[in-house]
Formats: sequence, structure tokens, C-alpha cells
Amino acid sequence: MVKVGIIGAGRIGKVHAESICKYVKGAEVRSIADPFLDKSAEQWAKSLGIQKISKDYHDILGDEEIDAVLVCSSTDTHSQISLDAIKEGKHVFCEKPVDHDVEKIKEVIKAVKGSKCKYQVGFNRRFDHNFRSAREAVASGKIGTQHVIKITSRDPEAPPIAYVKVSGGMFLDMTIHDFDMVRYLSGSEVVEVYAIGGVLVDSAIGEAGDIDTAIITMKLENGAMAVIDNCRQASYGYDQRAEIFGSKGAVAISNDTFSTAVVSTADGVIAEKPLHFFLERYMQAYANEIREFIEAIEEDTDVPVTVIDGLEPVIIGLAAKKSIAENRPVKTAEIKSAFGL
Amino acid sequence: MVKVGIIGAGRIGKVHAESICKYVKGAEVRSIADPFLDKSAEQWAKSLGIQKISKDYHDILGDEEIDAVLVCSSTDTHSQISLDAIKEGKHVFCEKPVDHDVEKIKEVIKAVKGSKCKYQVGFNRRFDHNFRSAREAVASGKIGTQHVIKITSRDPEAPPIAYVKVSGGMFLDMTIHDFDMVRYLSGSEVVEVYAIGGVLVDSAIGEAGDIDTAIITMKLENGAMAVIDNCRQASYGYDQRAEIFGSKGAVAISNDTFSTAVVSTADGVIAEKPLHFFLERYMQAYANEIREFIEAIEEDTDVPVTVIDGLEPVIIGLAAKKSIAENRPVKTAEIKSAFGL
Amino acid sequence: MVKVGIIGAGRIGKVHAESICKYVKGAEVRSIADPFLDKSAEQWAKSLGIQKISKDYHDILGDEEIDAVLVCSSTDTHSQISLDAIKEGKHVFCEKPVDHDVEKIKEVIKAVKGSKCKYQVGFNRRFDHNFRSAREAVASGKIGTQHVIKITSRDPEAPPIAYVKVSGGMFLDMTIHDFDMVRYLSGSEVVEVYAIGGVLVDSAIGEAGDIDTAIITMKLENGAMAVIDNCRQASYGYDQRAEIFGSKGAVAISNDTFSTAVVSTADGVIAEKPLHFFLERYMQAYANEIREFIEAIEEDTDVPVTVIDGLEPVIIGLAAKKSIAENRPVKTAEIKSAFGL
Amino acid sequence: MVKVGIIGAGRIGKVHAESICKYVKGAEVRSIADPFLDKSAEQWAKSLGIQKISKDYHDILGDEEIDAVLVCSSTDTHSQISLDAIKEGKHVFCEKPVDHDVEKIKEVIKAVKGSKCKYQVGFNRRFDHNFRSAREAVASGKIGTQHVIKITSRDPEAPPIAYVKVSGGMFLDMTIHDFDMVRYLSGSEVVEVYAIGGVLVDSAIGEAGDIDTAIITMKLENGAMAVIDNCRQASYGYDQRAEIFGSKGAVAISNDTFSTAVVSTADGVIAEKPLHFFLERYMQAYANEIREFIEAIEEDTDVPVTVIDGLEPVIIGLAAKKSIAENRPVKTAEIKSAFGL
Repeated sequence: MVKVGIIGAGRIGKVHAESICKYVKGAEVRSIADPFLDKSAEQWAKSLGIQKISKDYHDILGDEEIDAVLVCSSTDTHSQISLDAIKEGKHVFCEKPVDHDVEKIKEVIKAVKGSKCKYQVGFNRRFDHNFRSAREAVASGKIGTQHVIKITSRDPEAPPIAYVKVSGGMFLDMTIHDFDMVRYLSGSEVVEVYAIGGVLVDSAIGEAGDIDTAIITMKLENGAMAVIDNCRQASYGYDQRAEIFGSKGAVAISNDTFSTAVVSTADGVIAEKPLHFFLERYMQAYANEIREFIEAIEEDTDVPVTVIDGLEPVIIGLAAKKSIAENRPVKTAEIKSAFGL
Repeated sequence: MVKVGIIGAGRIGKVHAESICKYVKGAEVRSIADPFLDKSAEQWAKSLGIQKISKDYHDILGDEEIDAVLVCSSTDTHSQISLDAIKEGKHVFCEKPVDHDVEKIKEVIKAVKGSKCKYQVGFNRRFDHNFRSAREAVASGKIGTQHVIKITSRDPEAPPIAYVKVSGGMFLDMTIHDFDMVRYLSGSEVVEVYAIGGVLVDSAIGEAGDIDTAIITMKLENGAMAVIDNCRQASYGYDQRAEIFGSKGAVAISNDTFSTAVVSTADGVIAEKPLHFFLERYMQAYANEIREFIEAIEEDTDVPVTVIDGLEPVIIGLAAKKSIAENRPVKTAEIKSAFGL
Repeated sequence: MVKVGIIGAGRIGKVHAESICKYVKGAEVRSIADPFLDKSAEQWAKSLGIQKISKDYHDILGDEEIDAVLVCSSTDTHSQISLDAIKEGKHVFCEKPVDHDVEKIKEVIKAVKGSKCKYQVGFNRRFDHNFRSAREAVASGKIGTQHVIKITSRDPEAPPIAYVKVSGGMFLDMTIHDFDMVRYLSGSEVVEVYAIGGVLVDSAIGEAGDIDTAIITMKLENGAMAVIDNCRQASYGYDQRAEIFGSKGAVAISNDTFSTAVVSTADGVIAEKPLHFFLERYMQAYANEIREFIEAIEEDTDVPVTVIDGLEPVIIGLAAKKSIAENRPVKTAEIKSAFGL
Repeated sequence: MVKVGIIGAGRIGKVHAESICKYVKGAEVRSIADPFLDKSAEQWAKSLGIQKISKDYHDILGDEEIDAVLVCSSTDTHSQISLDAIKEGKHVFCEKPVDHDVEKIKEVIKAVKGSKCKYQVGFNRRFDHNFRSAREAVASGKIGTQHVIKITSRDPEAPPIAYVKVSGGMFLDMTIHDFDMVRYLSGSEVVEVYAIGGVLVDSAIGEAGDIDTAIITMKLENGAMAVIDNCRQASYGYDQRAEIFGSKGAVAISNDTFSTAVVSTADGVIAEKPLHFFLERYMQAYANEIREFIEAIEEDTDVPVTVIDGLEPVIIGLAAKKSIAENRPVKTAEIKSAFGL
């Protein structure tokens, strides 16, 4: 039985806590820490049978019974907590991104390499039924040699402006998942990035220094090309599609809906909108990623998403940012070299 | 060049005339006859290059140059015109149904058998891309041994009450196409029929002695079962679907739309309604059936829909009528035997 | 906290035990009883934290701590266990069908009425996302007055012949779910039934006195018509569809798949087959039904599927059986009257 | 009655000739000219009732009876024939592209402006049911302010290498249709282009100096962004899709198939591949564009696709070529200014 401590009891921390309690047999949540823990959070924790509650995550790290921690705090604390946890010999599951700052990610990589700790990064889409089926179609050879990878990723609603300001920008906050999907679906690395973007949804996002809509094209190491189109707001819900086209054919994945019901009336033939909320859309994937993290600990195998998988999408995101700023294609090697990578 | 005369210049007569002029290379429309021909019909005929126009169909039958006639007049005249045409040695394409009266169809069958005339009945759906693809999937063995044949057939709007009164009833007017499809798709014959029906759309249809909604189940000679559901009115358009299920799988055909456009908004994911109007839906099938009729004449081969194919659905329709009237399953042999067949 | 005992630790008993442990917060499984409990079942129970294990269900009924029992044993024991449980004042969730014998169901109904026990029957499809969406479309008035209800229900594989022999026949074993769906979707009662059926899948099923393929038409109290088509075996998986057509439109539900992936190659545009296994297909529905049963106990409200809902489909099934045997439409009133109902 | 001469009796010349004969009431094909006319082409022309046949297109231009000419010859002759035809006062329908050389297009524009001749360019997709429905959804305001326009355009098979060599390159030969669709769907102009491309299908295409796969991103005047992905070969057929995403929603169009048949077996749920051949896919669109050309002449209205619509996609294509060559975004203004536009 793997004993887990959860650091950060916000939305995603709660999701993981509930997943472990409900779906992950070989693990139990022993403690939870969050500086802003209130009464209702305490009650919620108790209802799940979580005994230890703290405002200080060091209480978790200092607990010898704890085998693994889940870092679900705000992004700016991810790398420091990761370093602290590794120092204490804890296995770490860290929410994405590890950091916006490549130097800090480098420190975490170094720490992981110097330890026997498992370190998994929270790219949940790799555990989603649709993306997995697409990846399997590619890996099985069904579509032949890859030519073009396309990802459409649109949020149902833009985040609050306060969040936008600390988000690291759309490319590091939202597109980072799509960059990860390009790597996951292709099994290859991004060599060069070109991005165009604009403020089409809400001018306040532009005033906060960010964009809300973008198209990013990429050249991959395996010779294929990729393109992502992003928007912070889609009136019809959370839009998460992908297509991989190759020499023998193509695989496409479309959106999940609550039900298959289709209503035909004088107004048209009307199917349901995609699931709106990311927690609802990816609930099963969140449970799967934690289950596989626990299994990697139990069976002492490699984690399915490594700390390097945490680094690469940040590099791509920084290349995309630079591409927008300078309106030119940017090689990922250029970004890496700036960080001595 | 097969020279054709068209008897009846109503909606379907015009469709066939235009089809021949536009799509059927080996045929020309030499003349057209209709007792109610007016100026605008004359102009229409001239615009298509049809030279001879008459109010009396005997003018067509008496014209030695004419090889074939299309009987597109009202149903109650089909059998007499067919007999007259065969007597004059003309090949005949007769709109469905040959007659509501089995005795009269028997006379036509006898006449056809005693002649060298081709005689094709206008079951246009046999020439439709969707129904043909379904038939081919069955015939190719893809679905294995047939188990269940299902047909959904709903009109977009009920016909005028005046038409309902002379239509022969829904089973002989509308369902007759579906009975034909059961025979076409299965390649087998209907042995027994049970029908339930009601007046759910318009009470005036009930007052005219007919029903507007029905479900008809059938036992087939090949051991399979079939079911048709009908309604005279579907708010969302002309609904024409079928499914054949067998030991190895199933083939299903759905509705045609004007375009593949799908609009996703806050209201849902909205596809187009089925094509509304039967002429629009089956335009290509109407052209195909005439082309194959002309080819059968040119190449002296069997017509694709015989006079017997014109008889059988009427028998099934009469069995269905009797089934409703007596609320019991009725064997088609019972109907046939009443007519000495 | 509702304390639950589970009687019967076969496939469905295990499903419910796991559902309660994982998804139903207000309940705990205190004990489980099964005469054939083996070591592995014991281990399974312990892994879920179920403390008491017995070979005799009376141990559960005699336990004062137990509030509710789930009757998951073989069908022939359902009614007796139900009666025993009600006598002990336990709330009962009973798997479908309550019994094949109407007299025994009557006894249960009488016992339920004479007690304060909740009694819910396990018609899981009422709790499925697809069927619920269809029901909601009907109830909301979107499709107007109901005209035709259609249900397609095909199993992926025929059950073992040993099971067929004690199953009560396809209508009471398999179609009973579809009869329940007709009632659920329409909100109305079945007045008359006509069925045709045959042995098309496996002659051994016929030798066991059953059929494997059928079409059943029904007249409903609300004036609508219904039709079910069934088969014990569909090569492409578990086929569970429905359509309700009315004056304003139609709602249709189709099958669930593992993912939305579609592969386009030279062989065609290939989507996934429906989920194959009923437990996989309806897992969420099984959890939902138990959750609502527990809620009805906690909040002392009506159960969502009553003992009468357990009776009516058996009546319809017996009418269908008689219809096949006598090849005539059979009124449900005729069956009821034979049982003094 | 508009009298038409057709210059070039290759594949597309024949398509237009047959369209006019079959579907365009107000026009007749009086003559056809092609330097390579052989016996079978002569027979074909006669079978359509085309009386005059010549090897020299000047015979058509010199015929006073001719009102309009269709320029269906090889691309390198389009502009000269256009100029000659305008000089003779003929209305001109010119296949795309007008020329690969902007200077020559400029001459044609000048000639058109100095005449009373109608001049329509053969961008057939503007007349396709799918693309029209998409355009109408955009124009109606259903999707709100445009954000992203996406076009997928893949040929079923690469053209012969001999053709590739004279094609002007993929961007001017194939993508030119997609550039036109960006302009048509958005109703806006392309401001800047960035393209990546490669030789993934056939190295012989690379040896011929061309690419076979590409992704092109564009910034539009109206603030929206666009992206096209192209490939010369798709194993599953001719892939022609588009999506326009905006503030209120999205409209997507997918591929046409021969029929709606879907076969479900143990191998999957298999729909038909897209129509394979461009003539089959766009047959109706070819007829529509000629019909509208004839109507513009008859009613003296503007043609639906002007000579400027013929210029702009060439400018975009040249920008894309330059973008690939120099691996940088290229403004269309840069290209135009090089040509004094």
C-alpha cells in the first residue's frame, strides 16, 4: 500500500485525492497540506478518510510513512516543493508545468537523476481514451509514415484575468498540453516552431500581455509537420480534437459528449455539445495517470511521463513565444542552447 | 435511339421527360399526352424539344415511330393504358402501383407474358445509391445470413385529403415502396404480415378511411423477419432509412442531406435535416431507372423491375390492410388464393 | 450511513459491491452472503473492506445493523429472499426479474405494500446516460406527442445453453429490459403485444425450447405504437439503440464506444465497435441505480423503480410468449386477468 | 440562347461541354477547338450535337455567332487565349489559374477592364454544396466574428511527374483552390503567409523541384487567422474539409461519399471512403459555375468569380513559395509590390 501525501488542496488536488480514494487500490491518501485550508476543506478531507491535515507541506515531507507526494500547488511553487520532496526521498507526481523557468526545471531534472525517486509530470491527456486510441493507431503502423499531426484545442471559457497574468502566457499554460500531445502522438521531437496569435476573444487578455487565439506550426525530427490551433473560448464547449495523417491513412479523434442522443426537429438534426468542463472531460484520465504513477512505484518501473517530458513542452512554448515576438520561425535548439541544454 | 412517348404530364411525367432529355443518351422523348395539357405545359415540352403534344394518349400508341411509353397518369388508368400499349407492341414503363386491383394486374401480367414487350414498374428506390449499397452489402455476403430487415419510411408532409381518398390507402400508396424494398433488400418473399396502425397525425385522414402511422412486421420465405415503420408526417423532413442485420453483421443506410455542414454553437451541434422533397431526394434514382429501362430495350435484356415485382407489393399491402381490419397475422398466400394466384 | 448486505456474490453482486465501495458515499457494504463463496471471493471481499462473509443469507437478514439488502442471487430465489428480507424490515434492492412467476411477484407486492420497506427493482438502463437523455427529450416535449417507439437490443453473444434452459426464455430474460424501456421512454403502459420470433443464431437454443431472434410490436395506452427487435448475437458487439418519434420530431440514441477514434484507410472509414460487454456498457448505470436506492432510503423518498415496475414487464413478456405460441396479438389485460390482476 | 465555343477538349473541357448540353438551358455549345482533336473526340462532340470542330481556336474567336468562350487549354496558353478572345469581344470563362506569371494576369486584367466582356475564373469549389453551406453559415452571422479558418485538402493520388514539372508547383496548382477558399469563406484578404513543406509522398516530386505536403498559415485583413494543410496523396480518397471558427461557434464541412451505407461487423463500424475522383466530387459544382457564368451574360450582371479573384490566389501562392524558400513569413504586399500592384 503506497502512502500518499497531497500538497495543494485546490481543484486539481481534490480531484487526485478523490481518485485515489475511489479508484486506486494500491494507494491511500495519508495526509494533505494547503496553506489556505479552511473548514469545508477539512470536512471534505475527513469524509474521504484522510487523517492528517496541515497548512505546511513540510509536515508531509517530514512524515516517514509517506512514500509519495502529489504536487498540486500553484505553478510557482512546483519546482521548490519537488526539490524538497526528492531530498526527503519521496516519489513525486508534479502537476504541469514543472515550472515556467527552464533553469528551475533543470534543477529538478538534476535532483531526479541523482535520486531513486520516481518523478511523474501531470500531462493527463496521455491517459485519455481518445488520445490513447489515436496514439495506438499511430504506433500500430495503421496510418503508415506520419505526414501531418493536427490538434484543435479550445477552452470553453477564458480564465479570469488575474489568472492570465500569472499563467506564464497561453503557450505555457494551455498550449503546453497540446505541445505534449504532439510529442506523445508522434513519438518524435519538435525541431522548429512558428506561431501567429492574436487577441480576438477579450481585449483584457491583451492588456494583460497575453493572446487568446493562435495557430502554431511545427517541424518534427521524424520529418512530419504539426499544427495546433488554440482559442481560449469556444461557445459550444471544450473542444479537444486531433488527427494524424500518414502514408497509409489517418486517425481522427473528436469530442466526448454526455450522451449519444440526437434530436431531429424542424430546427435541424441536433447532437449534444462537447462536455464543457475539463474535469468532467478528463476525469477518467486523471484517475488513470495516478494509477499508473502508483503502479510505477509498486513495481519499480519507469513512470509514463518523465521529468524530461515536463521540460520539452516548456522549450516548445518558449520557442512559440519568441516566434510571435519576432515573427519568425524559431528552432527549439536555439532555446535550449540559451539554457545550456 | 429509342423513341419514347410519355402519357401523363404531371409531376412525375415531367421528371421522367427531363431525365431522358438530360441524362439518357440512347433515348428521345418524341411525344407527350395529357388530357389536361395547358399552355405552360406546352411551353415546357417545347423547351425540352418535345415535338408532339396531345390530349389523347391513343395518339402516342398509334404512332409507329414510338418504341416505348411511360405511363405516368393517375393510378386508376395505369392498367388500361398498359394493356392498350402492349396491344400496340410498345414497351412500357409503368409508374407504381400497376393498379390497386389485383384482377387488373393479372390482366396486365397475362398481356405482358403474351407479348414481346418489356414492362418495367416504377419502383425508383431500387435505383437509389443508398438502397443499392445496402443491397450490395447483403448480396456480397458481408452481413452473412439475414436475420432482421428494418425500414423506416416517413413522409415530410401528409398528402391532401382529396388524394388520400383515392390513394388506395397508405399501404398501397406509401408503404408499397417499403414492401418493395423488403423484397429487394432481402431477395426473398413475404409469407405473413401483421400490421398495427392508427390516426396520429391528422384526424381528417381517419375520416377519409385511412391511417397515417403504422408498424408492419413480416415473416419472409428465407427465414428472416422484417419490420417497417411508417408515418405520413415527419417534422424534420423525408426520412428514408433501412438496416439489414445478419449473422456476420449489419448494414445501415441513413438520410441524404443537402450538404455535410455541421454548425456548433451554444445551442448544440447541428447538422442539416434530411432532404425534404421526394423528387429532390430520389432525382438521381428516377434518372437511373429510366436509363436501365432504355438499356433493357436497346440490349434486349430483362427489365430490372418486372410486372411480378409490381404485383407482389400489392399482395403484401392487401394482407396488411386485412391484418389491420381483423387484428391478426395474414398470410400472403391467403390473399393470393382469393385471387386464384 | 446506510449499512448494506449483499446476497449473491456472482458477477452482478460483485459489481454492486464495488460500486458502493467506490462511488456511493452514504453507504457501506457490511456483509456478503453466497452459498458458493470460495477463497478468491473471500479475498475480493476483504480487499473491499467487507468484514462479514457467510454462506447463508439469513446471517445478513438476522443482522440488526443491516439496513438494506441487495438480492443478487439466481432468479428463482429472488422472491423468497425478498419476502424474508421484508419480514425482517430490510429495504430491498432486487435484481431483475423479481420472478418468472407472477403469483410470486404478487406475494412480494403484497409484502412490500404491508411494510415500510423500500423495494427497488434492478432495471439499470433507466439510469443510463443515453436512455435518460432520450427520456428527457420525450418528457420535455421536444418531440411532441409520441407516435412510434423503437428499440434495438442485441447481445454480443448468446448465453450458454445451460443458462438458456433456466432463463425463463428470451422474453423474460433479455427482452424484459426492453419492455421496461418501452414503459420508461413512453411513460405509458402496453395494452397489446404481437411477437414473431425464430431460431436463427444457434439451433441448440431452439432445442432448449427458446428462440434467439424476435420482433415484438406493441400498442400503448397513450395511443403510440412500439417495436422491439432482439437478437441473442451481434457480431459487432452489444447493440443498444432506441428512437422515439413524435409529432414535433424524433430523438435517437446510439451505441457507446471506447473512444471516438476513426481510422480512414484504403479499407474505409472505420469507427470503433460498440462496447462489447454489458458490465462495461452499463457500469455507470449500475452505480447510479444503487446511489439512487441509497438516497431513497436516506431521504425516505420513493424508489425510482418500484415493485410494480418489476411486474409489468413480466406481464408483457408473458403476453409476447403467448403471442408467439398462438400466432395472434395478445392483450396484457388477458394475462393479468388470468392472474386475478 | 448564349452560343458557346470551347477551347481545349481535355478532361475539363469535356466536363464543361457535357454540363452545358445537359444542365444549362440558356446555352448551347456551338463549336469546340483543340489542336490534338482525334476521331474519338470528334465522335464525342457529335454525340453531344456540337457541330463545329476545329484544331485552331481562332476559328472559334472568328465566329461571329459565338458569344462566349471557355478556355480549357493548358495553363500556359490561358492568358494569350483570354487576350485574343477579349479582343474579339467574347465573354470568357477561364480555367484556373489564369497564369502562373503575374505580369500576364495583369495584361488580362487590363484587357478585361477595357472591354465589356464578362470574365469568370474557374474556381469551382465556390459552387459546391458543402463550401457554399459553410460560406452561408459565416455570412449569416451564425458563427459570429471569425477567429480561425481551417482547410484540409488532400488529393487521392499524386499527379504524373511530367505534370508536376509544368504545374507551377503545388501552391499554384493545388493549393491555389484552397487559397481561393480562404478568401471565399472569410470574405477577407490574406495579408501574410508562412509555409512549411516537404517531400513525404514521392521523392521523384522532390527531384522535380516541388513538394508534396505542406502546412500554410495566414494572417487575414479581418484579423482572423487561417491554416491549410495539403498533401498530394491520401490513401483513403479525395479529402476536402473546412472549418470556420468564430465568436459564436463553428461550421465544419466534411467529405461526400457515394452512399450513407455503414457496415458493422467484427472488423469495426465501416463507412464509405470519400469520393475519390475530383470530377465525381465536384461534378455538380462544375455545372453550377457554368450556369452562373451563362446567367451573368444573359442578365448582364457581375460574374461570381472575377479576374481579380483569379489574381489574388496566385499572389498568395507566390508568397507561400517565397516563404518556403526563405523560411520566413512573407507579406502578400511584398509580392504585389514586386509586380507594381
